[in-house]
Amino acid sequence: MSPPAQNIYDDDIFFAGYSKLARSVEGLAGAPEWPTLRAMLPAMEGLSVVDLGCGFGWFCRFAREAGAARVLGLDLSEKMLGRAREASSDAAIVYRRADLEHLDLPPAAFDFAYSSLVLHYVVDLKGLLEIVHRALVPGGRLIFSVEHPIYTAPSRPDWLKDDSGRKTWAVDRYLDEGPRSTNWLAPGVIKQHRTVATYVNLLLELGFTPRRLEEWGPSDAQIAAHPEWSIERDRPPFLLISAAR
Amino acid sequence: MSPPAQNIYDDDIFFAGYSKLARSVEGLAGAPEWPTLRAMLPAMEGLSVVDLGCGFGWFCRFAREAGAARVLGLDLSEKMLGRAREASSDAAIVYRRADLEHLDLPPAAFDFAYSSLVLHYVVDLKGLLEIVHRALVPGGRLIFSVEHPIYTAPSRPDWLKDDSGRKTWAVDRYLDEGPRSTNWLAPGVIKQHRTVATYVNLLLELGFTPRRLEEWGPSDAQIAAHPEWSIERDRPPFLLISAAR
Repeated sequence: MSPPAQNIYDDDIFFAGYSKLARSVEGLAGAPEWPTLRAMLPAMEGLSVVDLGCGFGWFCRFAREAGAARVLGLDLSEKMLGRAREASSDAAIVYRRADLEHLDLPPAAFDFAYSSLVLHYVVDLKGLLEIVHRALVPGGRLIFSVEHPIYTAPSRPDWLKDDSGRKTWAVDRYLDEGPRSTNWLAPGVIKQHRTVATYVNLLLELGFTPRRLEEWGPSDAQIAAHPEWSIERDRPPFLLISAAR
Repeated sequence: MSPPAQNIYDDDIFFAGYSKLARSVEGLAGAPEWPTLRAMLPAMEGLSVVDLGCGFGWFCRFAREAGAARVLGLDLSEKMLGRAREASSDAAIVYRRADLEHLDLPPAAFDFAYSSLVLHYVVDLKGLLEIVHRALVPGGRLIFSVEHPIYTAPSRPDWLKDDSGRKTWAVDRYLDEGPRSTNWLAPGVIKQHRTVATYVNLLLELGFTPRRLEEWGPSDAQIAAHPEWSIERDRPPFLLISAAR
């Protein structure tokens, strides 16, 4: 049995920093990987949707606008759920506090499960994905993004210059899965490093069928608008996976 | 239409170097990833097998010893085929010269297609995998290994020391797929860098169902026997994929 999840989003310093990110202020349009993730989504019309780690509820509101019948937004952070509830009075969106390390969902209750940049915090990912598999109807879809394993692997995640001045992403410990402590927005945030193979094999072992993988990096158009993003093509920051139950 | 494949294995310097590698002298037992690959194989009894890039024929002979009914070993290198033919007089193994850039195989003729560390040389991988898909019976298996995309990505594949003396694999250009020129055994060997997502998505688009991914690194037992291998856990050298037609 895992301990309760780390609740970093209710840390005042972390929350203040997170609230200022483009993806918090502008919502989905402020997340550079959103166009890629959006292109992977099923048609939302009439679907029953669950969002694992819904944060401020941007995706829950998007899903409803795109025609979803019902949306359940789950998050551990009271602060984030508070903001999400303030942002909409749509009765077809329900926000609920939930610990993804100890989740309970009814069987065959959802057509679509979504999770954006949350699952790399979850220690018992197999346990969670078992619950999600059972909670989906046959043919239902799971789509999630996580920090890319190349990004999470290093003991000291950073760029290093070689003697020619070329910037490179310094990879070590790729095959050593487990916790990584980083100082993103607050000191000592714990993420779980897993390999790409582990994500895919976990899905296969649980009976999911992978449908598409995306290792996200900025498009040419995005680089034209944000030249400083081009280095993200040197090592992808996000891994996006679509799978069917 | 791709040009004919690079035939680096018939280069005298490359061939001399390759012939001295443990995997050339000792065969499968000299390939550190073999135990992992072997564990992914289907039962060979009675199967019709094709080996894409059979080299000295070690796997073809293994397949026959494991009960395969027929084995077709394909390679571009006359030198390697010559050695393969010398090593066995088994009439159920046929060795044939073939360019994997322009392969022709009969439909539904094989139960199992295998390829070890060859497909990262192939420019038209989609074209080749289409032929392989058609050449397999429904339910047939494809299992292959390639150099891992983290290994093939860098413009200058090497380890870099950070200021604490930690050795890291210097990754750049991960998302920029295409040729990489390296000096492995001979100068200017051209490999095709592809991302993990591209390998998986190509299979999905062609109608294969992925069954398992392995990002190979040495086991604890292998490291105990070969302590110098431990750094391979910092970035996996090989990607192994099993898929069903």
